[in-house]
Amino acid sequence: MTDIATRVYNHKWKIDPIVRSLIDTDFYKLLMCQSVFRNRADTDVSFSLINRTKSIKLAELIDEGELREQLDHVRGLSLARGESTWLRGNMFYGKRQMFRSDFMEFLEGVRLPAYHLEKRDGQYELTFEGKWPEVMLWEVPALAILMELRSRAVLKDMDRFELQVLYARAMTRLWEKIQTLRELPDLRIADFGTRRRHSFLWQDWCVQAMIAGLGDRFTGTSNCLIAMRQDIEAIGTNAHELPMVYAALADSDAELRQAPYDVLADWHEEHEGNLRIILPDTYGTKGFLAGAPDWLAGWTGIRIDSGDPAEGAETAIRWWQERGEDPKQKLVIFSDGLDENKIIRLYRQFHGRTRVSFGWGTLLTNDFRGLVPGDGLAPFSLVCKAVSANGRPTVKLSDNPAKAMGPTDEVTRYKRVFGVGQQEELDVIV
Amino acid sequence: MTDIATRVYNHKWKIDPIVRSLIDTDFYKLLMCQSVFRNRADTDVSFSLINRTKSIKLAELIDEGELREQLDHVRGLSLARGESTWLRGNMFYGKRQMFRSDFMEFLEGVRLPAYHLEKRDGQYELTFEGKWPEVMLWEVPALAILMELRSRAVLKDMDRFELQVLYARAMTRLWEKIQTLRELPDLRIADFGTRRRHSFLWQDWCVQAMIAGLGDRFTGTSNCLIAMRQDIEAIGTNAHELPMVYAALADSDAELRQAPYDVLADWHEEHEGNLRIILPDTYGTKGFLAGAPDWLAGWTGIRIDSGDPAEGAETAIRWWQERGEDPKQKLVIFSDGLDENKIIRLYRQFHGRTRVSFGWGTLLTNDFRGLVPGDGLAPFSLVCKAVSANGRPTVKLSDNPAKAMGPTDEVTRYKRVFGVGQQEELDVIV
Repeated sequence: MTDIATRVYNHKWKIDPIVRSLIDTDFYKLLMCQSVFRNRADTDVSFSLINRTKSIKLAELIDEGELREQLDHVRGLSLARGESTWLRGNMFYGKRQMFRSDFMEFLEGVRLPAYHLEKRDGQYELTFEGKWPEVMLWEVPALAILMELRSRAVLKDMDRFELQVLYARAMTRLWEKIQTLRELPDLRIADFGTRRRHSFLWQDWCVQAMIAGLGDRFTGTSNCLIAMRQDIEAIGTNAHELPMVYAALADSDAELRQAPYDVLADWHEEHEGNLRIILPDTYGTKGFLAGAPDWLAGWTGIRIDSGDPAEGAETAIRWWQERGEDPKQKLVIFSDGLDENKIIRLYRQFHGRTRVSFGWGTLLTNDFRGLVPGDGLAPFSLVCKAVSANGRPTVKLSDNPAKAMGPTDEVTRYKRVFGVGQQEELDVIV
Repeated sequence: MTDIATRVYNHKWKIDPIVRSLIDTDFYKLLMCQSVFRNRADTDVSFSLINRTKSIKLAELIDEGELREQLDHVRGLSLARGESTWLRGNMFYGKRQMFRSDFMEFLEGVRLPAYHLEKRDGQYELTFEGKWPEVMLWEVPALAILMELRSRAVLKDMDRFELQVLYARAMTRLWEKIQTLRELPDLRIADFGTRRRHSFLWQDWCVQAMIAGLGDRFTGTSNCLIAMRQDIEAIGTNAHELPMVYAALADSDAELRQAPYDVLADWHEEHEGNLRIILPDTYGTKGFLAGAPDWLAGWTGIRIDSGDPAEGAETAIRWWQERGEDPKQKLVIFSDGLDENKIIRLYRQFHGRTRVSFGWGTLLTNDFRGLVPGDGLAPFSLVCKAVSANGRPTVKLSDNPAKAMGPTDEVTRYKRVFGVGQQEELDVIV
């Protein structure tokens, strides 16, 4: 029985929106936004989209008109009443009213600021300028839009049957990964795959597969909209943009050296428990830990997001031991370029020595590798980063020079200030 | 947008019919039915369902009431006007009006006769008695109903998500088989999987996958309803029931020895080209070919349905050479327990030496092996055979004693008459 109404409705679509809600974003964006809103609301920032996979010419694949439509659609979004209720009333990490009233009022009124879009060398130059608490909300939707428009561009010539087989294969692949992961009895794993997902609907399916296949071992999703709809935990802590902007705002080398700790001091005041997770790699993990104040060693754990992950975790364990902390009580969250075999390897190496958790991103929500001719749906490395703050450029060093960002002279200065020496370059998978 | 009408409609179903049409059957059933209708219409026959896989207790899995509902539903079916038009007007094997008017009038009026159903030792005893042209139409729907009710019994406790993953995996598996088969440039392959299909909808999907993946290399389906709906060729020739019933009707050993040739003499008169395919194994291929009249060597080809298939094809090639025929002009159709690797092996061995074709059955339309716990959806060997004709038992010897049927003393007599010696027993896969 054909549902005529549905078919007519489908034909009526002007656009098929990719981002349907302001909370179709990572939970940590909202946590960081509140922190920025309280501590640095008046900072002028600029965020830019950067495609680290130059071989994928986004401006040739994606129609500019369609991209503008999707971006404009996001600018028209505002927080829905039910979303606001969920954010205000929900318990996050065992705490109610995580979001304060003044921040919620801001969020209820916020609209995303204008964007600047140009084509250059087959890529889109997409930048966002304005006050930090507003501009920062662009990162995740901008990435999700570009990723999904790329998927759509590749899928548009496939017929209904080919599409069905494609998704059957992708479903089978993910389900087999999940069955492999079931072998790890104490696994703790979450979905971190919003920004580089194949599509919204696919991410939603992936989360349902994780729920069905892993039960309690699946700890939640970073995506607030999916967390709300599937009635599961929203997961997240903090990201590189905080130390990057704080650092750019520093007026001297001494202030610069202190900036990453200032970020965490602000955070410390606001959060406890599982939200006190150190992200140490922005300007080199070793130097960061060596220079860290003792109160940071009391935090719950650490997130390893670049460099060799096993080495990063060993470094953290040694650091806790040196500071008189018991690594067994600490949490290590791996979140860089994970796939099931890497997860199993890291789990086996660290399980029992510390509490281990995984934030599984791109290869959870966008593993279509090898499923279309020319591998046109393979994931790629797209980021959207703070590039300047109050007119000064930002810098990121990371534990992998392939992930470094910023003007050369500033990178040199940061390396000197943070005592970063030779680094091993690793392939950036996704 | 929920389609309320569809949901209400779904809830209203009394039964979900498995066989929805009298032409949801194998094309060769109709061809054979016409031959029987012309030559032996008045024969009283009895057909019985036999589950060769004793470990699967069908009467414990399948509710008797549901089975009766499905069987009763088939008894209520009659040839629809569009189906009759298609059979009358369609071109089969390049010939129009393959079905004569008197037969079409019979088919338009026919209703399937009563059935007898009992439970014994965890199995269903299901028999059909009456005139041959009517009783024979039960074989394929009876098998399809039992197969699909078994699938439904296993699936009924799975939730929506598990079902989605199950079918995704089955789709992926079939699509990978098809991609493997694409390596064979001159492949000729057809769907013979109606009788042991997982379900009607699944067979329909499998046929669409074959069309999409193999193009012209996919030569058609044995299922008339699917052939009509998908607008592709209906494929088939003849089966063991003809020589089995003809043999049972023989009044002497001499007539018995002649019976398989009488079948093909009747067939020869009616059909030409691709319909002149010898099925030689009912009472042993070697003896059949050795005693065959020369006009049979002029037929188009041979179907290998039991025994070692490569040996059967070599035997046929030698026989053609002995009879002065060119094997390169002949067609060998393999149809026993095929899967993609067996197909590739046989193709490589015989391609170029003769024309090769494949009738792919159970492992095309029912390969869910290993996809549910306890392997509850693995295919099994269910047949529905003529067991008596005018009160005399039928016998099948086959080229594999595991496929033999009939009372022991009659089997001994047939072996003597047809000169069948020692046979190699092979596992019956499906």
